[in-house]
Amino acid sequence: MPGPARIVRTAAAMQRLAKEWQAKKLGVGFVPTMGYLHAGHVSLMQRARKAVGAKGLVVVSIYVNPTQFAPTEDLSKYPRDFARDKKMCADAGVDVIFAPTDKEMYPEGFSTYVIEEKLSRSMEGASRPTHFRGVTTVVAKLFNMVLPTVAIFGAKDFQQAAIVKQMVRDLNFPLRIIVAPIWREADGLAMSSRNKYLSPAQRSQAGVLWLALEQAKTAVAKRAVPAAQLTKMTSWLISTQSETRLDYVEFFDPETLAPEKLVRRGTQMALAVFFGKTRLIDNAKL
Amino acid sequence: MPGPARIVRTAAAMQRLAKEWQAKKLGVGFVPTMGYLHAGHVSLMQRARKAVGAKGLVVVSIYVNPTQFAPTEDLSKYPRDFARDKKMCADAGVDVIFAPTDKEMYPEGFSTYVIEEKLSRSMEGASRPTHFRGVTTVVAKLFNMVLPTVAIFGAKDFQQAAIVKQMVRDLNFPLRIIVAPIWREADGLAMSSRNKYLSPAQRSQAGVLWLALEQAKTAVAKRAVPAAQLTKMTSWLISTQSETRLDYVEFFDPETLAPEKLVRRGTQMALAVFFGKTRLIDNAKL
Repeated sequence: MPGPARIVRTAAAMQRLAKEWQAKKLGVGFVPTMGYLHAGHVSLMQRARKAVGAKGLVVVSIYVNPTQFAPTEDLSKYPRDFARDKKMCADAGVDVIFAPTDKEMYPEGFSTYVIEEKLSRSMEGASRPTHFRGVTTVVAKLFNMVLPTVAIFGAKDFQQAAIVKQMVRDLNFPLRIIVAPIWREADGLAMSSRNKYLSPAQRSQAGVLWLALEQAKTAVAKRAVPAAQLTKMTSWLISTQSETRLDYVEFFDPETLAPEKLVRRGTQMALAVFFGKTRLIDNAKL
Repeated sequence: MPGPARIVRTAAAMQRLAKEWQAKKLGVGFVPTMGYLHAGHVSLMQRARKAVGAKGLVVVSIYVNPTQFAPTEDLSKYPRDFARDKKMCADAGVDVIFAPTDKEMYPEGFSTYVIEEKLSRSMEGASRPTHFRGVTTVVAKLFNMVLPTVAIFGAKDFQQAAIVKQMVRDLNFPLRIIVAPIWREADGLAMSSRNKYLSPAQRSQAGVLWLALEQAKTAVAKRAVPAAQLTKMTSWLISTQSETRLDYVEFFDPETLAPEKLVRRGTQMALAVFFGKTRLIDNAKL
């Protein structure tokens, strides 16, 4: 049984630790999270361990980042359970939990941001205009604090992973990004800390996101289909569930995120659906 | 006599080299420049050597960064002389010249920028609106490429140094910034690659920037003076020279860059003056 993960609270202590490992030419594998961990996160930790080997350092950050929430969003009620997170990290063989305070992350007078101006315009960026600026800023900060050789992001946040890869390339962060597959519940619902918000009625309907992806996959399996037609099919399927409101559905190139008018196998599909105030996202390569 | 500096052209090769030094727990001292080096740059190289010691790695980057020039500015005619720069670096005991290509720095599809939103509004930021976004972006890139333990900036670009320090703090770059003193010609003119643009008549008048700083220093040596009064004195002094046009003069707190209405000893003064199309800057703590 692995021991409990070491808890680190400051950037300076985290940098010292990471530099020790790098000086020994050992890998540092990093999984950034907002806590309230689930099996999807555990799969990312396992991927990090695989990437850095038994002697490498696996670091999980737990930080609910205020700059990626709009004032109207769920920052204050975002679920937290540090005791449970600690146990899950220990069970997964994580070496370090990096859990900085807000004051450590955004001290008085903070005024520097990282922005991405192309991939961040559509989808989540259109629905949540300040979201990705918060993401790129906190990820850049965490990279400089944790100094990873490899960082693991989940494919559920597909656009986020694409933007982080773009940032790493553009700003030359000396690390590798791995995007790990979505982890799903039995009915196909992608695992997310926000699933906790769903009422039992909403939860019973939430598998419809996955059904929408499967429906589109089937539709394009043998022939290309206009995006407009798939959008209609998706809207209709989502609307069969009483608790839903479709926010967006998009069909796009998985590298450039450019929308595709004619959808084929290999096109990426993403959608966001409201269940009351809870907004869930999912995506798949068709 | 030190040997010639090694020339490195790619981010990957530069990162490998820096990581070797860091693994040996040796310092990497970094001086970012746009080339066309002068004695001011040499003083920064010497400061870098002092910071990292004889076994440390001193890296000078030579890159005329397009993103910090506005379309109307002097990018295409910015002076360049790589052969001379190489010799000056060799004479100064520099280990590595990092001279990346535009394609290496800004590949097709580049879309990520670092922005600073508080210190960058006034002075150079007001006169050159996109300038500092280009500076913070290229400096962040260079930091991730060169992986320095210490980076040296010249005090002539006072606001730039303040913004870089803010960026390092906010984004947690694992390095130390040293701001080294301005190097001056015999008549007080701050050394700058742009001094080359001056006609003989303009050059003979360019000492007036330094005179303006000295005049203000004298004025506040014994009592506080309203900024408005010092601004008038400065404007008048600059206007005594036929080739000049004052762009701005500011009196401000050296840490926050907040303007000060009553100027005392310790207040920072900065000014920018056009000589024809050539724009020179200078500053001093009064």
